[in-house]
Amino acid sequence: MTETVSRRITLASRPHGLPKPENFQISDVELPRVADGEVLIRTIYLTLDPYMRGMMEDAESYDDPIPLGGVIVGSTVSEVVESRDPSLAPGDIVESYVGWQSHAVVPAAHLRRIDPNLAPITTALGVLGMPGLTAYHGLLKVGLPRSGETVFVSAASGAVGATVGQIARIKGCRVVGCAGSDEKVAYCLDDCGFDACINYKTCGDFEAALREACSDGIDVNFENVGGPISRAVMMQLNEHARMAVCGTISNYNATDAEMVPDNLWWFIVRRIRVEGLLVTDFAEHDEAARAELASWIEDGRMIYRETIVDGFDNAPVAFNRLFEGSNFGKLIVAVGDDPTKG
Amino acid sequence: MTETVSRRITLASRPHGLPKPENFQISDVELPRVADGEVLIRTIYLTLDPYMRGMMEDAESYDDPIPLGGVIVGSTVSEVVESRDPSLAPGDIVESYVGWQSHAVVPAAHLRRIDPNLAPITTALGVLGMPGLTAYHGLLKVGLPRSGETVFVSAASGAVGATVGQIARIKGCRVVGCAGSDEKVAYCLDDCGFDACINYKTCGDFEAALREACSDGIDVNFENVGGPISRAVMMQLNEHARMAVCGTISNYNATDAEMVPDNLWWFIVRRIRVEGLLVTDFAEHDEAARAELASWIEDGRMIYRETIVDGFDNAPVAFNRLFEGSNFGKLIVAVGDDPTKG
Repeated sequence: MTETVSRRITLASRPHGLPKPENFQISDVELPRVADGEVLIRTIYLTLDPYMRGMMEDAESYDDPIPLGGVIVGSTVSEVVESRDPSLAPGDIVESYVGWQSHAVVPAAHLRRIDPNLAPITTALGVLGMPGLTAYHGLLKVGLPRSGETVFVSAASGAVGATVGQIARIKGCRVVGCAGSDEKVAYCLDDCGFDACINYKTCGDFEAALREACSDGIDVNFENVGGPISRAVMMQLNEHARMAVCGTISNYNATDAEMVPDNLWWFIVRRIRVEGLLVTDFAEHDEAARAELASWIEDGRMIYRETIVDGFDNAPVAFNRLFEGSNFGKLIVAVGDDPTKG
Repeated sequence: MTETVSRRITLASRPHGLPKPENFQISDVELPRVADGEVLIRTIYLTLDPYMRGMMEDAESYDDPIPLGGVIVGSTVSEVVESRDPSLAPGDIVESYVGWQSHAVVPAAHLRRIDPNLAPITTALGVLGMPGLTAYHGLLKVGLPRSGETVFVSAASGAVGATVGQIARIKGCRVVGCAGSDEKVAYCLDDCGFDACINYKTCGDFEAALREACSDGIDVNFENVGGPISRAVMMQLNEHARMAVCGTISNYNATDAEMVPDNLWWFIVRRIRVEGLLVTDFAEHDEAARAELASWIEDGRMIYRETIVDGFDNAPVAFNRLFEGSNFGKLIVAVGDDPTKG
């Protein structure tokens, strides 16, 4: 492929339930010339995140839905191929939000330069990118954990969950999670330093397992999944507990609204505070957060795990791994050569 | 009745749905002698509040349930008849928490002396008592309204709701409420200074009426009722809105858990913060709050409305008015002579 053509994946039709191949279309399009202030970038890595599923729905959300025929949104790590802006030069590595396409011409102002010496450049999509910042801001600014408290996080081995758990541990909290395989549970316990982690698929009575793992109750719930796990956690929250609502992945492919008992009364009983969080609300604190996360990685207090899928055209199939429980760690698609690798 | 006998109403059986006369028992019991540090008090006024219904259930709540055979809980305004504590003298007017009984012997330390010159002594059960303090702390410390924002309050003509609306107006907010009769709506609009008030029983499409009344959306919801009204309000909350959960009266007599759509996702879309509130958490600020409320009443910026039902034995029947919509303003039972009245 020449660098005047971009391969892109667009939304052919809106998924009903789990996305199917026919919901996506792959095509090659001519790129425009690079104008003043713009750069041509080549995608090296593309991230796959659960929030993208919500944007495929034609429903009100925190952002406009992807239009039919529009490129699937998302961040990339890309290399500058041609620049008509003094701030960037060919060979620079940048983070973009151009979505599922192999190349793009974009204003230089829309890009964030990445320092490849700080950490592997894939981390700009994971622990040092949106998922890591979501964990950092969401736990520390919405969850407000205090040393000695019990923090619970669902989807605990995921890109967000594992970071939440490790930050909570660094802050002196007792950390309990849940995940969907013994391998993921072992990762949380042995590699991330969780105090307890429940395999919710094999534990039997989840409420009983949760009560045993959180014998002092739960002070902070970092909510990633929604559904029955969320409700069990909510009933075991301590007085004045905080619940940071980051995601409700169990519902993202639901075709009917899930009906649950009205539990507003419980908010009073325990004086619970529940707050939705969106990482972009905290953008002014991103640089400081990224620096602190990088320092924890540098001194060995924080680890991360990534799963790299090869081949741009595999993005739609790989995407569903996020909802089927078969993905482990930050899911990334390798689209083009990584110049930072020997 | 001599003052060595107390007439009391106890819980004979737990109500299923709306309480019935047979759930209560009225009896006369001998009082103990007054020991050192104690006083004998005579009930002048008894308050009836919705929260008492929750305490008749054998379910976990923020306080222990009333045991079978136990006196129904609640505050009274009482007169000291005999005192064996230097802090109180016969004739003093006090607020107690002795519940539904005509007389009681209690430690002086459990009583709060009321200044009859500050305001009518009934206000110690209403605008200057638990309901007024709930409105004050709940709106200002949990709802956190800013001048120019839209505040919505359900059960708007009630003891809590009308106070919430007037405080919001004093703080420069646009105030919208809902109530269940044209008379209550007129009270909110004409007497309490609400900007809009919806009769939810006659308005037809409540969501549409709410959208029209709150054309800039809702920034603070002071939740008193739960159920369908609460959900309609939640869907019209603005980004970063706050919801202070004070009560869910629509559910208090429900015999099955009401099932509602799981709307945790909506917390993220609008970054809503929902927090349960209990007035006793703010006790250290009660004196300052009561002084400010009294000053607003004094300078005419705040009004209140009370409904007095005569006769101790009528308390159980009067209690149900709280749930049937037939009560208007703070519901109080007159039990004995009010010495502050000509």
